[in-house]
Order: sequence, then C-alpha cells, then structure tokens
Amino acid sequence: MKLASLKGPGREGTLCVVNRDLTRAVKAGPWAPTLQQVLEHWDELAPRLADCAQALEAGANRHAFDFQQALAQGHIAAPLPRAYEWLDGSAYLTHVARVRRARGGKVPESFYSDPLMYQGGAGAMMGPRDPIRVLSTEWGVDLEGEVVAIVGDVPMGATPEIAAAAIRLVTLVNDVSFRRLIPAELEKGFGFVNGKGANALAPVAATIDELGRDWHEGKLHLPLLCTVNGKRLGGPNAGVDATFSLPQLIAHAAKTRDLAAGTMIGTGTISNQDPATGYACLMEARLVEQVEQGAAKTPFLAFGDRVTLEMKDAEGRSVFGAIDHVVERYA
Amino acid sequence: MKLASLKGPGREGTLCVVNRDLTRAVKAGPWAPTLQQVLEHWDELAPRLADCAQALEAGANRHAFDFQQALAQGHIAAPLPRAYEWLDGSAYLTHVARVRRARGGKVPESFYSDPLMYQGGAGAMMGPRDPIRVLSTEWGVDLEGEVVAIVGDVPMGATPEIAAAAIRLVTLVNDVSFRRLIPAELEKGFGFVNGKGANALAPVAATIDELGRDWHEGKLHLPLLCTVNGKRLGGPNAGVDATFSLPQLIAHAAKTRDLAAGTMIGTGTISNQDPATGYACLMEARLVEQVEQGAAKTPFLAFGDRVTLEMKDAEGRSVFGAIDHVVERYA
Repeated sequence: MKLASLKGPGREGTLCVVNRDLTRAVKAGPWAPTLQQVLEHWDELAPRLADCAQALEAGANRHAFDFQQALAQGHIAAPLPRAYEWLDGSAYLTHVARVRRARGGKVPESFYSDPLMYQGGAGAMMGPRDPIRVLSTEWGVDLEGEVVAIVGDVPMGATPEIAAAAIRLVTLVNDVSFRRLIPAELEKGFGFVNGKGANALAPVAATIDELGRDWHEGKLHLPLLCTVNGKRLGGPNAGVDATFSLPQLIAHAAKTRDLAAGTMIGTGTISNQDPATGYACLMEARLVEQVEQGAAKTPFLAFGDRVTLEMKDAEGRSVFGAIDHVVERYA
Repeated sequence: MKLASLKGPGREGTLCVVNRDLTRAVKAGPWAPTLQQVLEHWDELAPRLADCAQALEAGANRHAFDFQQALAQGHIAAPLPRAYEWLDGSAYLTHVARVRRARGGKVPESFYSDPLMYQGGAGAMMGPRDPIRVLSTEWGVDLEGEVVAIVGDVPMGATPEIAAAAIRLVTLVNDVSFRRLIPAELEKGFGFVNGKGANALAPVAATIDELGRDWHEGKLHLPLLCTVNGKRLGGPNAGVDATFSLPQLIAHAAKTRDLAAGTMIGTGTISNQDPATGYACLMEARLVEQVEQGAAKTPFLAFGDRVTLEMKDAEGRSVFGAIDHVVERYA
C-alpha cells in the first residue's frame, strides 16, 4: 500500500491511503489518525490499512478525494510530517570518492566496511510541494536525492536481517544541504547542525510489496530522476554502486541503541560510477567540472530555482510521486 | 512550575504537575495530556498548569499522589519522554581543553566563537531511574552531566534574545557516552551515531521563574553533584566557565533552520577550570590522571555501577530531583 499525510489539524497531519497510480486517496480514519501511531501499532493497524487500499484500488469512492489536486493545492505534507530520528548514511561511495578526488584525496579503506552516517533534524519535514526556505543563498543551497526507509522498533544490536524485517515503508527524500557551511562543520567532527536544512519527503511512502521486483537485497533498483529548472541533472540508479543496503545502514544505526518506531534511515545521495547517469546533487556536478574542466560551472540553487526528484518504474509510473519545490527567501 | 511525566499509557507518557519540594504531584488532565502538546500550545496551556501548581503548593490534595514513591517505583519517565530534536552543545571549553591537552593539542581559537554542537537521538529518553542498558562495557561507558533547555518554536535566524524568550523549561541530562567508540566517529567528521546512547532526564523540568536568582545571563549558576557508586566524582558549577549561554547555543542551532517546539538543547558536559570542583564525566578525570600521573586510573562504568546527578539550591533543596541509575546488560 501507499500512504500519505494531509496537512493538519495537528503537526503530525492526517494519515491517508493512496491508490497505486496516485490519483485517489482516502483518510484512514480515527483508528489510524497519524502515520506515527500506525508505525507504533503496525501489526494491528497495517492489515486494516491494506484493506482500505484494496477497496480504493477496486474503485470504492466513498470519501475518496483527488490526490493530485490536493498535492497541487499544497495540502499534502510529508508522509511522516515529523520524525523522532533521522539518520542519514552514505551508501554510494562514488559520491564520497568524487568529493575526495576534488580535494586531492582518496576514500579511506574503512569507509567500505564502516558506513558514514550523521544524525539530522526531522522535527518539521517539508511536504513534497513546500518551498525550500533559506535566509541566504550564500550558504550554497543544494539538493541531495536519496531513498529513505521508515522503520518499526529496531532493537539494539539488530542484524541486517532483523533490520530488513523492520522496514515498514520506503520513500524519497531531498536532504537539502548548505555546501558552503559544511567544510567548517566537518572539520569540527561533530556532524552537521548548520550545514543541513529541513528535508522534504515524496508525496507517498510505499510498503516493500508495492516495489515488486525493483526491491531486492535491501536496495531499490530504480533511477532517481533529478531536475533543476526543468533540466535533467541526473538519474542515478539507487540499486547500482550502493556499498551498503538499507538493512546494513539500519543495523549500523542500531549498533548501540534501540531505534524507535518512526525512525528514518537514508541511503545518502545516490551516485553511480557511470558518468552518463548524471547526479542527484549539484556538488557532484561541480566537483567533476572542477577536475575535468578546471572550474565548477553548475551554480548552487538561487531563489526561485525549482527542483524535482522522482522515481518511475519500468512502466513509467511514478512510484512515490514527485518532490517538486522551489527555493524561497525565509520571511 | 515543575513538570514531570508518568510512564504510559503511550510513549509520550502522562503530564504531571509537581510541587516545589518534589513530594506531591497531580496529573495535568485531558486538556494537557503530554508535555509535547503543552509545548506546542504553551501560551494557552501554561497558565492553566501554573494554576494547578499553585493549588498543589497551597496544599490541594485531590488526586495528588506521592511523587517520591512513584519515582522509587520506577513510574516516572523523562519529563519529555521523547523529543523530536536533541542538539547538544559544548559550552564548557575546560572540558574540551582537557581532552585536547591529553592528546598534546590545544583548543582551536574558533571554538570560542563558533560552538561545537552535535545532533543526537532522543526518540526514547530514559526516565531518571531507568537503567543504562548496553551490550558491552567495552564501549567505555561514561556519564556526561549537563543542563538542558526545552524550547518552544524558534524561528530560523533567531538572535540569542529571541532564543532566550523561547526557553520553556530547564532540566538535567545524563548524556551517556561510549568513549571508546568516539575517536573513530570524530575522525569521520559526521558526528556521533554509535558513540552516544539513550539519555536520561532528571525527574522534573522547571520553568525559569522557579530557578530564581540562580538563573541569569542564560546560565544556571548551581553546582551539578555527580557521584559514581556513592563516591563524589565532582560538583562543577554550570554558571562558571561557560563560554556560551543556553540562548547562544539555541541561536547557533537555529542559524539555518526552524527549531520545533519540544527541541532540547544541551550545554555539554559541565566543567570548571578549578580542579577542586571535580568532574561531570569520567573521561575528564581519566585525562587529568593521564597528564598528571602518567596513566588513567578511574575506570569507565561497569555493569552494576550506579550514577547520580543532582542540583541543589542554596537551601539544599533538590531543584530537579536526582537522575539515579545503574548500568545493566541489554537483553
């Protein structure tokens, strides 16, 4: 099934079930008011939501609304409008290698067995059409296109197998990054506080069974189409060149602590070795330009710039709907 | 007023108002079921809670229960049992200087103007009597005694003055750290994922007015008494040698993003230059021993070890109640 959240009445929104082609949706109802509540009572509530999804698919129209219209009108929040934990890995070492190469360095051997991961803020996620609001574009505003897993309770010390079984939903994230603030924070070693902004999720999150054959070995084998102002930035495949699977990243996060239901784990910026796939962030384009052409030419995002992130299956159907938003001045 | 949370029925617990000397408490009621809800509707609900606190102080006993008994029986959760954001600063550069000195280094000049801060997990806080559960004491289990502010909504770019006005509650935290896992994570630069465990909060959180003259310039001017197995580890004063105030740390965290109501901001391990004050973490004791005696003698925490953290005012009254817990094997 595919789940979304309408904005309001509270900060956690109102849970909705969406049909497979993202045209129609229905509120789950008072027994499942928010996605967080469902994640905490998954075994009890997920089957009821699945019934709801099946009825919707079969054409039941009672209380259903036009999902695309609600999306266009800005009524759709992130599927999980706020999360208690957001841990973002760095599964695609091609991305890391390009960054290091531009600095004249190499990827440390340990990165291939011990994943990079930072903890970020997710107390107020952006909806898929909400603007990226910044005080200044001097920060070096960039997108980062990733796949994210939303998990149930994961016990401390969980194996990747246990972690895989705890994945409840998968969706896309734009992990907005402020590139010019990151080097100083990396040097301090304490991770990113100022270097990362609020993140956006795709319109819907999907259960693993919705992903069919595109999901295997804990990876989603589909390209992530990224555009800036309508121009293709890239379409790297999330199943290609991923050193770590999502279950491995979840197990890393759970090494010394329980992860509470509703924790989100990201893959890190998707990146493929094949340069023809392009990029899921501007920085990589810039670093490649710097190495190959002597200077970065692709600019970071300016006010008014529009970013889209979307994944389509083999039949060309949007799996999660598109993140589609513009950069705005915070006021 | 002083607020606490009873465990259950949900993961956010049940909000209670506690009297000044922490002997009696009363459930706030269905209009204020959880602290998170109160933080989101502070202007409307805080005055009603204050009325409740006043009645309790005046001796109203209807529905009141014995707070100390509930605490002893393990029924008290962290005042905020889970938080969407937990950002921990490093205000006491004495602590940082001791770490660096042991490594033969100095504190970079920039640390005096640009605070160290990491984002940690707070999806499942420990209550004040809940055990510190770890899979292995080989991790180098340590306490970190700190003051923490719980804020209302803070807009992006807030000044320290705006940040100060957004502080709703203050309490203590034991920011449990796994010392032997930290060096490798510091080297990666992405902050602490495995190096920090779940944290414990003190039994109650207090509004600023409860702190009287002990709160000024955004700092709480009281010593934090820390013991391990009944033996004094230290009592550094949170108002002494703090390079950054809590409002300054909050403003740092809000530089590039909104902070949602319920965000927790920590001071970092309290540490004074005067060696007679002792320490609020074992690592500092070890580092000083290493420099002065050639080897660290104070061990990290072992299974069964008991840690207490408490602040008393000039009259000897416990301000927040004690964090008092033991290290247990996770099972």
